[in-house]
Amino acid sequence: MNTTQRADRAGETTREQQVLARIAKVRARRPKVREERITLAHGAGGKATHTLIEAVFVEAFRNPVLEQLEDGASLDTEAGRLAFTTDSFVVSPLFFPGGNIGDLAVNGTVNDLAMCGARPLHLSASFILEEGFPVVDLQRVVASMAAAAQAAGVQIVTGDTKVVERGKADGCYVTTAGVGLLDRPLRLSASAARPGDVVLVSGPIGDHGITVMLARGELDISADIRSDTAALNGLTARLLDAAGAGVRLLRDATRGGVATICNEAAVASQVAVVLDEKSVPVRPVVTGAAELLGIDPLYVACEGRLVAVVAPEHADAALAALRAHPLGEGATVIGAVRDDPPGLVLLRTSFGGTRVVDLLVGDPLPRIC
Amino acid sequence: MNTTQRADRAGETTREQQVLARIAKVRARRPKVREERITLAHGAGGKATHTLIEAVFVEAFRNPVLEQLEDGASLDTEAGRLAFTTDSFVVSPLFFPGGNIGDLAVNGTVNDLAMCGARPLHLSASFILEEGFPVVDLQRVVASMAAAAQAAGVQIVTGDTKVVERGKADGCYVTTAGVGLLDRPLRLSASAARPGDVVLVSGPIGDHGITVMLARGELDISADIRSDTAALNGLTARLLDAAGAGVRLLRDATRGGVATICNEAAVASQVAVVLDEKSVPVRPVVTGAAELLGIDPLYVACEGRLVAVVAPEHADAALAALRAHPLGEGATVIGAVRDDPPGLVLLRTSFGGTRVVDLLVGDPLPRIC
Repeated sequence: MNTTQRADRAGETTREQQVLARIAKVRARRPKVREERITLAHGAGGKATHTLIEAVFVEAFRNPVLEQLEDGASLDTEAGRLAFTTDSFVVSPLFFPGGNIGDLAVNGTVNDLAMCGARPLHLSASFILEEGFPVVDLQRVVASMAAAAQAAGVQIVTGDTKVVERGKADGCYVTTAGVGLLDRPLRLSASAARPGDVVLVSGPIGDHGITVMLARGELDISADIRSDTAALNGLTARLLDAAGAGVRLLRDATRGGVATICNEAAVASQVAVVLDEKSVPVRPVVTGAAELLGIDPLYVACEGRLVAVVAPEHADAALAALRAHPLGEGATVIGAVRDDPPGLVLLRTSFGGTRVVDLLVGDPLPRIC
Repeated sequence: MNTTQRADRAGETTREQQVLARIAKVRARRPKVREERITLAHGAGGKATHTLIEAVFVEAFRNPVLEQLEDGASLDTEAGRLAFTTDSFVVSPLFFPGGNIGDLAVNGTVNDLAMCGARPLHLSASFILEEGFPVVDLQRVVASMAAAAQAAGVQIVTGDTKVVERGKADGCYVTTAGVGLLDRPLRLSASAARPGDVVLVSGPIGDHGITVMLARGELDISADIRSDTAALNGLTARLLDAAGAGVRLLRDATRGGVATICNEAAVASQVAVVLDEKSVPVRPVVTGAAELLGIDPLYVACEGRLVAVVAPEHADAALAALRAHPLGEGATVIGAVRDDPPGLVLLRTSFGGTRVVDLLVGDPLPRIC
């Protein structure tokens, strides 16, 4: 072991100690939900969601796998290393340009598995249907799920259906869960980002969220835009083949968007994530609609875009691998990881200034997925 | 191979061919949902549910695992044999004597895995919350889930939370999924029943369903009864240790009750299931309330009772194993499998007559789980 390696190792240890100390601190803090009743913000993926998860779910279910708060659970079982994940979908409207609740649910669960570095294998699908929901609509949703599963190379192997009375749901809610095989020697984690790492995104952001908002007809504009919903397991396989050893973290930018992923990484890794506004790919129509809605595209959900944090020496290979795949053609570097200030996301604006990009407090885009 | 063995083997082959022919026939039949809109009956576990599953879900997702229509999927993966299952819970009211939606969800998913012969390992939990739902109620639900998981020896390792606007849900819906290890050389299946087999139930039936109906206050009576919700993986482990080689089928008697399980076995195995009414254990309060509701206790849901179909030479060992466990103290033989008439369930009534016990057409007990 030479001096540099020893220093690296020492640096690793210090960092690990810092992360452990942070976990200890978070555990000691015992976050509290201040509200007496659930609000839409608790489902928005921002601050209220994080507090609810930590104060209610992690507090009660407490175990080392759940406490990692990744997109899915990585499990060491007697049957090998598996990834396991679930998501409920309550998107409104159910049908929108580019997709519907069905392919959204399949792609979302496939993506959560892919972001763990897993090869998605099997999905479950559970439906909560409102009495009176048209059977033809259910058939459209289910047909989209079948097509999405086939495109992603997974099988829907088990499921359930419940029906509730009129006025006790909104047509159709879908919950998917998925199992995948962790057959690569990776430990992707929000706490794995290191100063010097590069932050990449696989394409233009915010298409899904803006499409759904426009489909609600609340913003009296029509635009040529469609959801980016897609299964990213082919893209992650390509990326991990090319730059696996250097990939620290993969996340699909759903609820809360790119800003939320960067915040989670900054806090969990105790690093700063510095984004460069002019490098963040956003379609003009998304920028325009987001302006009308008064929100930053960095917070708008995508359903077919990933953020990767990659070691600097693997960044070129990672970018090339993403761009070589149809779903990553628009991949680009959007920022870098720095030492300071730990736990924060900074944005270098187009005007040359710098501002903090925090977690969202409210929910500007309810029921986006 | 002696003559008897040869004859057995030939009998096996003929039966297998019959089952395959039946599957081919079912596939060819292409069932249709006649209703234009979803009704509560589609969620009741009876005829409408079966048609919906076959016509919509199996039709679209078509794969050999799903087509077996067991409580969970048995998967041969590179990581070994796994069981995978999911259920949504929409029970109303959320809290009832003996449990709430939280432990019901955990026990339900643990039981679906146990009924596959699996050792349940990991659960996911996904919540759809209605805006305005009291946080203390959520905490009660979650605390029950944690306690139920601990009692069953499983961990809740991943989850999701969505919030919908007031009037778009009914407080709280929970969807659990679960993964278990199939580490026994079993192939339990609804199509495995053979003439001569014995049908056992692990205790008095209908407690859960009647408890929930009474908790709604619609039947102006109060009774000393509580839900039987419980994790049955300890009980199935004991049963399979004692009589594993002879166990053909395990099912927990949830929606649709014991009658539905027997119908599924009769149809899938092309056998008759003959039940003996006076042997079926039902508490007097359940009999009384079911009479007031105008339903047969055989259709009322339990959430902590199993039905086992066992080869005759293993029946004594199976019964003794069930009775030796606190959750199987009331186990008893309730019927037998016969050759004829294939696909039907018959009940020998207390009055000495015999009647057909068919699948339910409507839903007398909506939102029971």
